[in-house]
Amino acid sequence: METAKVAIVGFGTIGSGVARLLLDHGERIARHAGKPLELVQIVDTDLSRPRDLKLPKGLLSDDLSKVVDNPEIEVVVQLIGGLEPARSIMLKLLESGKDVVTANKALLAEHGSELFDRARQLGRSIAFEAAVGGGIPIIAAISECLTANQVQEIHAILNGTSNFILTRMEEQGCNYAASVAEAQQRGYAEADPTMDVDGSDAAQKLAILAHLAFGARVDWRDIPRTGIDTAELPDMRYAKELGYSVKLLAVAKLAPEGLELHVSPTLVRHGTPLAEVRGAYNAIRVVGDAVGRVFFHGPGAGQMPTASAVVADLIDTAVGRMAITFRTLDLWSDDRQAPVAVRNPAKVPGRFYLRFNVDDRPGVMAEIAGILGRHRISIASLIQHETEEETDGVVPLVIMTHTAKEGAMSEAMKKIGELSCVHPGTIRMRVRE
Amino acid sequence: METAKVAIVGFGTIGSGVARLLLDHGERIARHAGKPLELVQIVDTDLSRPRDLKLPKGLLSDDLSKVVDNPEIEVVVQLIGGLEPARSIMLKLLESGKDVVTANKALLAEHGSELFDRARQLGRSIAFEAAVGGGIPIIAAISECLTANQVQEIHAILNGTSNFILTRMEEQGCNYAASVAEAQQRGYAEADPTMDVDGSDAAQKLAILAHLAFGARVDWRDIPRTGIDTAELPDMRYAKELGYSVKLLAVAKLAPEGLELHVSPTLVRHGTPLAEVRGAYNAIRVVGDAVGRVFFHGPGAGQMPTASAVVADLIDTAVGRMAITFRTLDLWSDDRQAPVAVRNPAKVPGRFYLRFNVDDRPGVMAEIAGILGRHRISIASLIQHETEEETDGVVPLVIMTHTAKEGAMSEAMKKIGELSCVHPGTIRMRVRE
Repeated sequence: METAKVAIVGFGTIGSGVARLLLDHGERIARHAGKPLELVQIVDTDLSRPRDLKLPKGLLSDDLSKVVDNPEIEVVVQLIGGLEPARSIMLKLLESGKDVVTANKALLAEHGSELFDRARQLGRSIAFEAAVGGGIPIIAAISECLTANQVQEIHAILNGTSNFILTRMEEQGCNYAASVAEAQQRGYAEADPTMDVDGSDAAQKLAILAHLAFGARVDWRDIPRTGIDTAELPDMRYAKELGYSVKLLAVAKLAPEGLELHVSPTLVRHGTPLAEVRGAYNAIRVVGDAVGRVFFHGPGAGQMPTASAVVADLIDTAVGRMAITFRTLDLWSDDRQAPVAVRNPAKVPGRFYLRFNVDDRPGVMAEIAGILGRHRISIASLIQHETEEETDGVVPLVIMTHTAKEGAMSEAMKKIGELSCVHPGTIRMRVRE
Repeated sequence: METAKVAIVGFGTIGSGVARLLLDHGERIARHAGKPLELVQIVDTDLSRPRDLKLPKGLLSDDLSKVVDNPEIEVVVQLIGGLEPARSIMLKLLESGKDVVTANKALLAEHGSELFDRARQLGRSIAFEAAVGGGIPIIAAISECLTANQVQEIHAILNGTSNFILTRMEEQGCNYAASVAEAQQRGYAEADPTMDVDGSDAAQKLAILAHLAFGARVDWRDIPRTGIDTAELPDMRYAKELGYSVKLLAVAKLAPEGLELHVSPTLVRHGTPLAEVRGAYNAIRVVGDAVGRVFFHGPGAGQMPTASAVVADLIDTAVGRMAITFRTLDLWSDDRQAPVAVRNPAKVPGRFYLRFNVDDRPGVMAEIAGILGRHRISIASLIQHETEEETDGVVPLVIMTHTAKEGAMSEAMKKIGELSCVHPGTIRMRVRE
């Protein structure tokens, strides 16, 4: 019987998960692929690291040429993190005639254009379901299932680490530092979680989705982003009081003026599907002009959910579906439609949550409200509690605005910041409309 | 440039939606398919019915031979409802060399085996994304995206009409008849909504999903099912008081003893994704052994959502992906894996919500609790309110049980029904664990 020979390059946690599926569940995978997928080679620079599965003798090597020079290997799962040598090795694999499956969103967000062009020239494919949304099949959904639609909006929770931290803060009342520590302890956060909590990881994933759904060609560094590293417990409590949860939301929204793109902590109304996403889960809400609103929810990271997406890509590639998808989608190609313009962030309207630390004296509210009013920003709701705590005469004032332009909001915030009655530590978050 | 010529047979609401996408958004579809899809023929027996779009002259005909005898037509969207002539026409289309796209779940649930066999013999494909879950790409998710997994559980809201009615009852306090009338007025329910509200529609869809996910070959009529046509407002209120919503849930769950399958009104805990599905929406929660829990939510019916799924299938077929999927999945084939056994419903454990109408006198609770206890069914919670209404000495008693076997539950219910203190109108519903 015909078999498809596959290899894994980069053998960490995800790689072990992929190997386990291929080695332990070969029969199931053969049934879904119409033929067996035979894992013939694994390559990693580190041969001594303890791994959570037992490999057949001779399968693991530190010699990449065992893959590159083996013409029988059709598909390679490349799971090397970071940009280099991941980029060079992917080019080498493509040039040696292999189709590639990857989970490396940073690599695609950074070098997608070069890698996809090269793959096209060589008649090869790159599959990347695992790069966004972990086990959620969002890449297939947008690039194969919602193809009758013009996607109009994407609102997504794309970073499981941030969502875990926010959920701990909101539900257990743990502070930011303690929540980060717990995420690290549970394996949801790296030793250095910067890319997760500052919004970079979500921005890279959003750049990929925005390219798939809108043809946008945007450098992820140009996507305005705010992380959750400034998240504070009082805001969780006020948000809850107002009927909202705080989520790190990645947004891409098409308007006649262009594409709105940003990543930021956002108040999401209780009872809506996005507000109910807890822990390390991811979720993506897509609006298409034909289908309406479709919502996907699942594990955003982790060994086996990510391996599930990688192996689905492996099957897609081995059976020939991926070659077709890759050719028809023509991603990151210069021949594709003219890219949609990214909208000037200052012109994007939105509702805002504001928390000021203000002097506890008469007239303060009037000064702040006056500045908002002069910038045509109207107040939707307001919280100022009596407090029995020692406040040194400084109290929190929480304002939720109606829709206002981001630019006007920024100007008003600057002016309010100059008031002598307003102390440092002002918080501004978006509110999902 | 190469184009794919397509036709529509059966030109009702969905057909008009498909035609609109093909005619008005051809450029977008060509981009996603890598080539234009040209709608060259529409066939319907009724030429005079008013339709909500203007067709180019000569496109609509009542002569099926214009499709069957045109060798240039590669793919046909067949949107004829019911079993006959839908079945005969599909066979005819396959035999004339066409690939077929359909939304007719009743036809597949009834004749899937025959139709898929015939398509395979002829080297053709049948695509049916729109048959289950409307605009939600659940067929692709299970058959292409979760292929690394053994699916373990499916919990789904598959009938939008029922969910709309239940939502009206729960949120607006409208009674069943008024909610049905409103569903009809809004176009969510047929003039005769029997198949929707008695669970048949959901059972047909569940039979298809169970085949895809578990290889089960089950006659949908053999799936135990209870509809929402016995739903009453008091149960909505008691469920809410206990922290639950009532949903018509379709369940397929793999256990060592076999596959548990049923459709029934079920109490679903507030705050879980399934409980938050409102109105005419559908949702499917899939658990796979690698990916874990994935959740899909979207419009379960309606012209454009269904057309979105049909056109995605059309694109998949035109580009050649569907031929591969159809071949590798080998659906309803006798050569496929041995079908999983369906579990004896009497042996399936579950939690239950019970409402009895009982005499308002001492000792009644003891009698009922005694029978439950003798059947080893333990009580988790209980509601009996003081009432100021005129009750004729009959009051409601609501019991939520811990896990018990369906068979023991049925025996206990029979015994309780024989008690002189228990009046007719007992309600029993499952509780999602």
